[in-house]
Amino acid sequence: MSGISKIAFAGSGNVATHLAKVMAEAGLDLVGFYSRNKASAEKLAHIYHSPYGSYNELKTCNADSIIVAVPDHAMEAVLEQIPVCSSLLLHTSGSLEMNALQHSSPRIGVFYPLQTFSAAKLVDFSQIPILVEANSDEDTSMLTELAGRLTSQVYHINSHQRKKIHIAAIFSSNFVNYLFHVAEDLLEKENVPFEVLRPLIEETTEKIKELRPFHAQTGPAVRNDLETIKIHLKDLEKMPEYRKIYQLLSQQIIKSRNQ
Amino acid sequence: MSGISKIAFAGSGNVATHLAKVMAEAGLDLVGFYSRNKASAEKLAHIYHSPYGSYNELKTCNADSIIVAVPDHAMEAVLEQIPVCSSLLLHTSGSLEMNALQHSSPRIGVFYPLQTFSAAKLVDFSQIPILVEANSDEDTSMLTELAGRLTSQVYHINSHQRKKIHIAAIFSSNFVNYLFHVAEDLLEKENVPFEVLRPLIEETTEKIKELRPFHAQTGPAVRNDLETIKIHLKDLEKMPEYRKIYQLLSQQIIKSRNQ
Repeated sequence: MSGISKIAFAGSGNVATHLAKVMAEAGLDLVGFYSRNKASAEKLAHIYHSPYGSYNELKTCNADSIIVAVPDHAMEAVLEQIPVCSSLLLHTSGSLEMNALQHSSPRIGVFYPLQTFSAAKLVDFSQIPILVEANSDEDTSMLTELAGRLTSQVYHINSHQRKKIHIAAIFSSNFVNYLFHVAEDLLEKENVPFEVLRPLIEETTEKIKELRPFHAQTGPAVRNDLETIKIHLKDLEKMPEYRKIYQLLSQQIIKSRNQ
Repeated sequence: MSGISKIAFAGSGNVATHLAKVMAEAGLDLVGFYSRNKASAEKLAHIYHSPYGSYNELKTCNADSIIVAVPDHAMEAVLEQIPVCSSLLLHTSGSLEMNALQHSSPRIGVFYPLQTFSAAKLVDFSQIPILVEANSDEDTSMLTELAGRLTSQVYHINSHQRKKIHIAAIFSSNFVNYLFHVAEDLLEKENVPFEVLRPLIEETTEKIKELRPFHAQTGPAVRNDLETIKIHLKDLEKMPEYRKIYQLLSQQIIKSRNQ
């Protein structure tokens, strides 16, 4: 088994940018950046002294693996432009099945870093779980080895599980962040700094290292304190959207205790 | 100004237990625990070598301050049983106005530690914001000094603001914890350990130290990726309650970007 050492990227967005950085740091050889957006591919190529170009130029590249890091909705169109070759073809999507790649290469797989990437925020990749899947045992081993160069947390996850993990990630990260936004917005209207909530937010995350979320639940809903809930719903009358969220989540918490 | 050094508790639940512990550690003098539940008051009194009894015995206690730490719905009934005296009478509720105490003492105030308390989990009190309010400047100063013995984060917050902070806390802690529960439940059904989400959850909290939640938002909804949302809603068809939450929060995230 020779392993994967030469990597080409198809796509030049947030995920490609973060992955390229950590792969270069891990000593992997970035052999090219290809994108519909030539300028942004060029930008990455410049940083890593690599060639760049549009997707069809991938046919002349000598990558052991091509990582297609584009939005799900663009995947099909991008794959049509990528020439079939013998490189291990990977996507980085939480939602798409591995088989989305099946007409584009005989060797396919998934390399999904489970994290929230913002361009403006650096992340410590060594703590990020990477979920891998491939269509042969040999490629699974190679992907495991590749992921292991970037992080200590490598998981073998099939497409069905990955989709559910992605949904769970949306609940526990994207939706959670939105609730932080709601909280900040409520405080801003009262001229109270968001900082007052930080220790509470940190303890909420800290707590579930010791207790399962079900047992860590506090607040009016879990106490079935309908009086307080009623007062809060009245207080939120002028913010009908926040009111709807308060009502639905309180209802669900109450229900979850009666099951 | 002599300050507050002798404290009596009316109520013997989670908040009283946590407060008593940290106040004893700070060298305050716990002069009694009074409760409808004499056994649980006795338990606390035993730990701190204090007297205990039912509420009406408070009339003979020599507390500088009486902290009424009982559930909101019990407050009125408890206050009726507490004799009016010259001690500074405090409650610890996020939702109740200070004036809920006005018929029970000439000197009233609020001492609200903004944290999620579970009996099974210790917390570092020195990082917990304490929100104080009193009906005189002198008592406000005394409360500030008292809170300052327990934490570095003391805020002067009026009843109206405190109520809104409490609602914001429910969004950013109670509801967030419930979403963690949903995520764990989704993973459990696929035999995937909750641990796979931990780095993501931690980064979600970490991120908002550098970015405002509005700018930290990621995921299908903020990208207006209706195709992925549709697939996920279909995946959640057999879990109609989780589906409802996914739908509402995705809608709100999309709306929040178009305002």
